[in-house]
Amino acid sequence: MAKEVTLVEYLFLRLHQLGVRSVHGVPGDYNLVALDYVEPSGLHWVGNANELNAGYAADGYARIKGLSALVTAFGVGELSALNAVGGAYAEKAPVVHIVGVPSTASQDQGLCLHHSFGDGNFRLNADVYAKFTCAQANLRDKEVAPALIDETLRQCLLQSRPVYIELPTDLVKAGIPAAKLERPIDLSVSPNDAVIENAAIEDILKRLYAAKQPFIIVDGFAPRYGISSEADELVRVTGFPTSTTPFGKGIINETYPNFHGIYAGAAGKEVYVPWVNSCDLVVRIAPLNADTNTYSFTTLTKRNLTIVVHQNGVEVCGAFYRDLNTKTLLRKLLDRLDKSKLPRLSPYPDLGDPKKQLYDLAKPARDAIIDQNTFWQRISNFFRSGDILMTETGTSSSGGRDFVLPPQTTVINSALWLSIGYMLAACSGASLAQREMISEKSRPAGRTILFEGDGSLQMSVQAIGDIIRNRLDITIFVINNNGYTIERYINGMHAGYNWVQPWRYLESARYFGAPENDPEYPVFNKRVKNWGELLDVMQDEQLKAGKGFNMVEVIMHEEDAPASLKNLVRMAAKRNEGSAETTPARQELKKLKKRRDRDGDVVIDSTPRKKSTSLSLSLSLSLW
Amino acid sequence: MAKEVTLVEYLFLRLHQLGVRSVHGVPGDYNLVALDYVEPSGLHWVGNANELNAGYAADGYARIKGLSALVTAFGVGELSALNAVGGAYAEKAPVVHIVGVPSTASQDQGLCLHHSFGDGNFRLNADVYAKFTCAQANLRDKEVAPALIDETLRQCLLQSRPVYIELPTDLVKAGIPAAKLERPIDLSVSPNDAVIENAAIEDILKRLYAAKQPFIIVDGFAPRYGISSEADELVRVTGFPTSTTPFGKGIINETYPNFHGIYAGAAGKEVYVPWVNSCDLVVRIAPLNADTNTYSFTTLTKRNLTIVVHQNGVEVCGAFYRDLNTKTLLRKLLDRLDKSKLPRLSPYPDLGDPKKQLYDLAKPARDAIIDQNTFWQRISNFFRSGDILMTETGTSSSGGRDFVLPPQTTVINSALWLSIGYMLAACSGASLAQREMISEKSRPAGRTILFEGDGSLQMSVQAIGDIIRNRLDITIFVINNNGYTIERYINGMHAGYNWVQPWRYLESARYFGAPENDPEYPVFNKRVKNWGELLDVMQDEQLKAGKGFNMVEVIMHEEDAPASLKNLVRMAAKRNEGSAETTPARQELKKLKKRRDRDGDVVIDSTPRKKSTSLSLSLSLSLW
Ligand SMILES: Cc1ncc(C[n+]2csc(CCOP(=O)(O)OP(=O)(O)O)c2C)c(N)n1
Ligand SMILES: Cc1ncc(C[n+]2csc(CCOP(=O)(O)OP(=O)(O)O)c2C)c(N)n1
Repeated sequence: MAKEVTLVEYLFLRLHQLGVRSVHGVPGDYNLVALDYVEPSGLHWVGNANELNAGYAADGYARIKGLSALVTAFGVGELSALNAVGGAYAEKAPVVHIVGVPSTASQDQGLCLHHSFGDGNFRLNADVYAKFTCAQANLRDKEVAPALIDETLRQCLLQSRPVYIELPTDLVKAGIPAAKLERPIDLSVSPNDAVIENAAIEDILKRLYAAKQPFIIVDGFAPRYGISSEADELVRVTGFPTSTTPFGKGIINETYPNFHGIYAGAAGKEVYVPWVNSCDLVVRIAPLNADTNTYSFTTLTKRNLTIVVHQNGVEVCGAFYRDLNTKTLLRKLLDRLDKSKLPRLSPYPDLGDPKKQLYDLAKPARDAIIDQNTFWQRISNFFRSGDILMTETGTSSSGGRDFVLPPQTTVINSALWLSIGYMLAACSGASLAQREMISEKSRPAGRTILFEGDGSLQMSVQAIGDIIRNRLDITIFVINNNGYTIERYINGMHAGYNWVQPWRYLESARYFGAPENDPEYPVFNKRVKNWGELLDVMQDEQLKAGKGFNMVEVIMHEEDAPASLKNLVRMAAKRNEGSAETTPARQELKKLKKRRDRDGDVVIDSTPRKKSTSLSLSLSLSLW
Repeated sequence: MAKEVTLVEYLFLRLHQLGVRSVHGVPGDYNLVALDYVEPSGLHWVGNANELNAGYAADGYARIKGLSALVTAFGVGELSALNAVGGAYAEKAPVVHIVGVPSTASQDQGLCLHHSFGDGNFRLNADVYAKFTCAQANLRDKEVAPALIDETLRQCLLQSRPVYIELPTDLVKAGIPAAKLERPIDLSVSPNDAVIENAAIEDILKRLYAAKQPFIIVDGFAPRYGISSEADELVRVTGFPTSTTPFGKGIINETYPNFHGIYAGAAGKEVYVPWVNSCDLVVRIAPLNADTNTYSFTTLTKRNLTIVVHQNGVEVCGAFYRDLNTKTLLRKLLDRLDKSKLPRLSPYPDLGDPKKQLYDLAKPARDAIIDQNTFWQRISNFFRSGDILMTETGTSSSGGRDFVLPPQTTVINSALWLSIGYMLAACSGASLAQREMISEKSRPAGRTILFEGDGSLQMSVQAIGDIIRNRLDITIFVINNNGYTIERYINGMHAGYNWVQPWRYLESARYFGAPENDPEYPVFNKRVKNWGELLDVMQDEQLKAGKGFNMVEVIMHEEDAPASLKNLVRMAAKRNEGSAETTPARQELKKLKKRRDRDGDVVIDSTPRKKSTSLSLSLSLSLW
């Protein structure tokens, strides 16, 4: 290797070492020279049509591959991507956002440069991004830049959140000793305190063994904490009744007999809530306690009966064992677990069997209109192991909770940020990551399948151009119901503002320049208006193969929505009114507020922080 | 009128009083109920496909109509629009950004709600927006809300910059006495100090009369300060040689014999710079001293020979007369001006006559490829009084500087923020404002004509759906040169990252759902590959009418660009290198930096502020 590399090469080669193979982004004059080094560093330039989509795609890539890179230009470019990076921050996707900024000389002179307000302030955007990323590096000095880069990338991976790197134009080619690349970035976590870890494991085991009516809820931060396989093993080995949250969908093998679908609290089946509330032990793995992920907080359980596994600590029925890497902890716990001491539930409760429910569904009439209530189950017959299934916020994400999944499928949905437009662009990133991983043999073969509302598709439609440019294999089911149906349920069922301009969705491939008659990149387009047409299309060999660009436009009724969605939005609408009626939930929240006013620190978070414990736990009381 | 109106009606009716007739934006669950009041308040809901485009469109509407409204939802919605609002802030477009936020109760309880980071912080986005808007109102209390709204709208208009209003869901329907709407919002400015104003006028008149070689440069903030007609009158009455900046294009009547096109400094015709540098008086009206508007600062002139007209003050050759409304001042100046005392330039300098240059152009060969060097002049024959001409950043905005304009045309380009994607969406807002104003008889009949690069079009393409939804009359010339040609000139002439996926642009109308064979909304599509085809299309009656949706795809060579652009980007590339060579400019900037370090305040701005005067003036020294 040469004795020196440029600073930008140092950065790109570090990303390469960490498994990144593609860089998302958009050129701009402050980053152009940096882009000259993308391909020479062994990375593929994706070339997105706009920055928001580039950010969304980078997020999707990160959720599949574990790390991604996004390059934008100062000001207009980076700010266009802010909402995407916000989503990555909220839902913990490790995205490295590299921004090409004006030269240090121009900045120091406070020049009135384009893409700024002309006020000589070059910290504006970095100040904003400091709130949207977990670590920031401003590369102004080539001596310290490599260490700064290493630490920033380290934080990105350890915290599983986006980071922000400013690369001034005059630093791009600064010379860095190539030898610095030889030592890999240190990603080790400090070992757990053996005594505390042991105490926590004993405490947990004791409760697992003693439980009479235990319940496991697997949530969506598990992959971010690297504990998905431990969660899966716990579910399999214990045989405890298990559900996931919406965000946690697909993390464990859902063909296990003790898997009972999503626990939807007050929005779900009526038998479920009283049963959960009478459990004597609930294990929550990697939770995200957002309104939308807890069905307006109705799935939260009593603190003194709940074990909560976070990234760096476990709460065991009120006792918080902090500063413990829970991946290590769970591994040891599983190794030590004595299956024979675990309770056997008899009779095993009747919490429903999603597979059987799907099997039992009566065959629909061929000419009947496709309904939201069974579509999401029936479409599950189309899925195969290895698939990535993505459901956009709207009826799709709600409906996708009913998917009956084969093992080894990955589901991506949004459970906190909920920015529509995200999923279409994210699926380009996910599909790209999948393609790379299949060829690296780190993922089984499979397809990327997206379920997307018409309103959401319109938000970020140019992502289809990016998909075609990069010849990504993607299958899109567009739910065409003439607009924003999820919003119709919240307010304005017949309002004009919930209607969208009808586009000719099936012409997407043509419009965005898909090749015609290219066997290497086939195109499939079909509109289905009734069950017969849908069932036929599900048997189509080309569509089943999932190669090239595939779109199925599914016509549904404007006022149709999955039942659980109808229930959920009713609760959200009530909260928006902010009316003064006193419910138990409201009283609970008043107590909470008082406590907060006293403690002086406003933190309700799924990740425990100092001082916030009492808050995050107090919310865990059953509210309704 | 009813005795009470809801708070949201109060807001919408205030906007209506100020001339707003359409509201841009996207629904979201925190703003839905507010949207129920749009149409009842006499406003049209535009319903954009995404928030960034809604923001851009609101900006375009504001630049034509003088005020606009944008409604988004908390978090994901408002953040998606941030870059658009940033552009409005930088280039002074008065946009009222109304954000539907969670109820005050939910906020106060610090709930873990969707569209937030889940950390109980509901000030995050407002904190960001405080940097991107000139006034903010958080409507938490119905007693003070009306006054807060009034003051925020006042600031929006007076400063001609975006403002930010948070509307919690539980305040939407709060009752406000309708009588409060009867007194209009006070938009008066405090009267000028008569003595200081008089001194300034005398000082200016003296210098106008004494000048031997005077020069006027009209810049783009003139409409924002409401002084376009005064600028026009000054140019007409004095007969002084006049140019505009790129941003100032079209503000004065460019058919005057003393108008000589854009002064392009080091990037322009060689004779021009020495002539300007030997002027003994330069009048700059409403300047924006950005690199991109001053051709890398090469059009700046000596402070002691320059009169600068700002919004609230004039600098007269070094003396700064502050706190004067310059609209009033200019009016008085023009009334008092004695034409007979003005110098007559003889011989009148040969600074070029754009109209004659266009007339003199040799007829192109019909089958010759369309070249950037003459396209922008020749297309001018298509323009008519009343037209709005919009040129997107790229070869279009550079080329559009060569337009030869009929009187009463409006040009919109970006001169500081330069966010591509802006112009397509902005043209939907501009066209809507134009349609309203034509029907209100406050604007002459005319068309909205957009010049847009293929790369830029891809950024915000769903705006075409918004155009069709709102049945806006628009003519788009798409400059198809296979990608980011302006960037190719900065770096990477043959680089893959400057290439874009080729779309089938001419199918836009179809794809985005334009009606077929609707005489009320006709569609025109045509690709032109050579001069013959272009000249024919310019004669087409349907295209000339400009009714409905019209697109002309103009094929140009990837490596072709207007000459002035080639020169400009060469300078920008040099600055990006930030190399250490010492040029006169660099020395000047060093001095500047020293002075700034001493003064402790980093402000270089086109608007003078306290303490910043020495800085903004010192930059006015000729740098090259
Ligand atoms: C960026 C952004 N803007 C607005 C919203 C508010 N919003 C949430 S869901 C939704 C409608 C989704 O409609 P569609 O994609 O058609 O799905 P449907 O419910 O009709 O299946 C909207 C507008 C949002 N979440 N994100
Ligand atoms: C939001 C945003 N992203 C990136 C840029 C950087 N940029 C400036 S001009 C340009 C290319 C414009 O290309 P095109 O619209 O095709 O115009 P051309 O110069 O080819 O005519 C780019 C990418 C920008 N100004 N704004």
